[in-house]
Amino acid sequence: MPRTQLIVSYRGDAYVGWQRQTNGLAVQQVVEEALERLIGEPAAVTAAGRTDAGVHARGQSLHLDHDADLPPRAFVDGANRFLPDDVRILAAERRTPEFHARFDATAKEYRYSVSTAPVIDALEAWRRVRVSPDTDFASMNRAAAALVGRHDFSAFALAGGAHHSSIRRLRSAEWVVEGEPAEFVIVGDGFLRGMVRSIVGTLLEVGEGRRSPESVPALLDGRPRAEAGPTAPAKGLILEKVEYSLPTGENRG
Amino acid sequence: MPRTQLIVSYRGDAYVGWQRQTNGLAVQQVVEEALERLIGEPAAVTAAGRTDAGVHARGQSLHLDHDADLPPRAFVDGANRFLPDDVRILAAERRTPEFHARFDATAKEYRYSVSTAPVIDALEAWRRVRVSPDTDFASMNRAAAALVGRHDFSAFALAGGAHHSSIRRLRSAEWVVEGEPAEFVIVGDGFLRGMVRSIVGTLLEVGEGRRSPESVPALLDGRPRAEAGPTAPAKGLILEKVEYSLPTGENRG
Repeated sequence: MPRTQLIVSYRGDAYVGWQRQTNGLAVQQVVEEALERLIGEPAAVTAAGRTDAGVHARGQSLHLDHDADLPPRAFVDGANRFLPDDVRILAAERRTPEFHARFDATAKEYRYSVSTAPVIDALEAWRRVRVSPDTDFASMNRAAAALVGRHDFSAFALAGGAHHSSIRRLRSAEWVVEGEPAEFVIVGDGFLRGMVRSIVGTLLEVGEGRRSPESVPALLDGRPRAEAGPTAPAKGLILEKVEYSLPTGENRG
Repeated sequence: MPRTQLIVSYRGDAYVGWQRQTNGLAVQQVVEEALERLIGEPAAVTAAGRTDAGVHARGQSLHLDHDADLPPRAFVDGANRFLPDDVRILAAERRTPEFHARFDATAKEYRYSVSTAPVIDALEAWRRVRVSPDTDFASMNRAAAALVGRHDFSAFALAGGAHHSSIRRLRSAEWVVEGEPAEFVIVGDGFLRGMVRSIVGTLLEVGEGRRSPESVPALLDGRPRAEAGPTAPAKGLILEKVEYSLPTGENRG
């Protein structure tokens, strides 16, 4: 049975999140229904990870097993015809049955966008969060640097994630401040539920002078969620890409 | 009675256009209702011009007369609290009663965004229109240059505009192609209804090789609408700004 990897981009606004829920429309459902219309058989996709309600994605990764012997290009051109503008399949690659979108993912990159403008214009307000013009990004970067490495991120995990361990390894975490918007770019081998937004909420407290950069590393000592900052709004967050150890465009095995 | 000029940004997606209609929600209604909540009196705004359903604005300009003696800053901070994310008041200036948002406007700038990418990602697909990667932007720019100046733009006017004359003066019209998206930037002293999108639709026919650049100037000879190209989709169009002869930030009179 052929297995195809798909890269999917979506706006989170209109959805209850990636994963199917009983309380509203999920991106997963929209994608699976479009794929079913394309391939003419039931489609069940496996994604690299969930994204919460309102979170956007530029490069969610998933795999699909299908009987239909369609070339990768047909998945892009065909499925997009059945998808709304706010969900787009960007790329497709044929993979061997050993490839797994979640288990084989070696890293994920998220980006969180904020703006210090007095007002964010209507064309961008749906994906940027306003912060004070006095926000101290240098302090935030000192605190962010302390999070890099292998740590216990319990203090940054929302309830409801099915995680065996709260140990994760961050490869990098940095605010990039060059014009608008300022972006927090964070790369890790995996993330707990709500982890990026909890880190952002905590760092913004540092940036506002309400928490010292030096106090942040102590949170990595398995502290309870309540000691970290609030969960920043979903609309500022984008799942930018998912990395695999296999070279881009090349199949494993 | 104080008069205040407001610069308003909006996404066109959810609205029937700028002007109040019987068939759905207009941006004007949303703005006026927010202003009424702010100033506690009926608010009737006058805009520099209408935008059609689906057309976006980064810098629509309007004026409002009000009894309440509110400083300009209060209009920005206050009204935005009553507005949805897709309508934002960006700036406000106190004006004399002689200032008129429509009659005093000396020019408008519109931008139209297209993409030659195989797929436009979901974060941008709501405001860019996909065109062929073979689109010949140089030919389009030759045709666009011929439109600059004072001409009869009947061939590019949709029915339904209340215009005394179809003579308009274009100051500039150019495709700017530097990465993504390619943008058509057009500045004129005024525009007929649907004129920018009709020009874009006609130029795209040139870019696709279905119409010669040399045939475009003949359309300026008062030709009927049917001889020009189709009206390009609203979602690619943004009213970028409205210009006045009074220096920015300074009051006239």
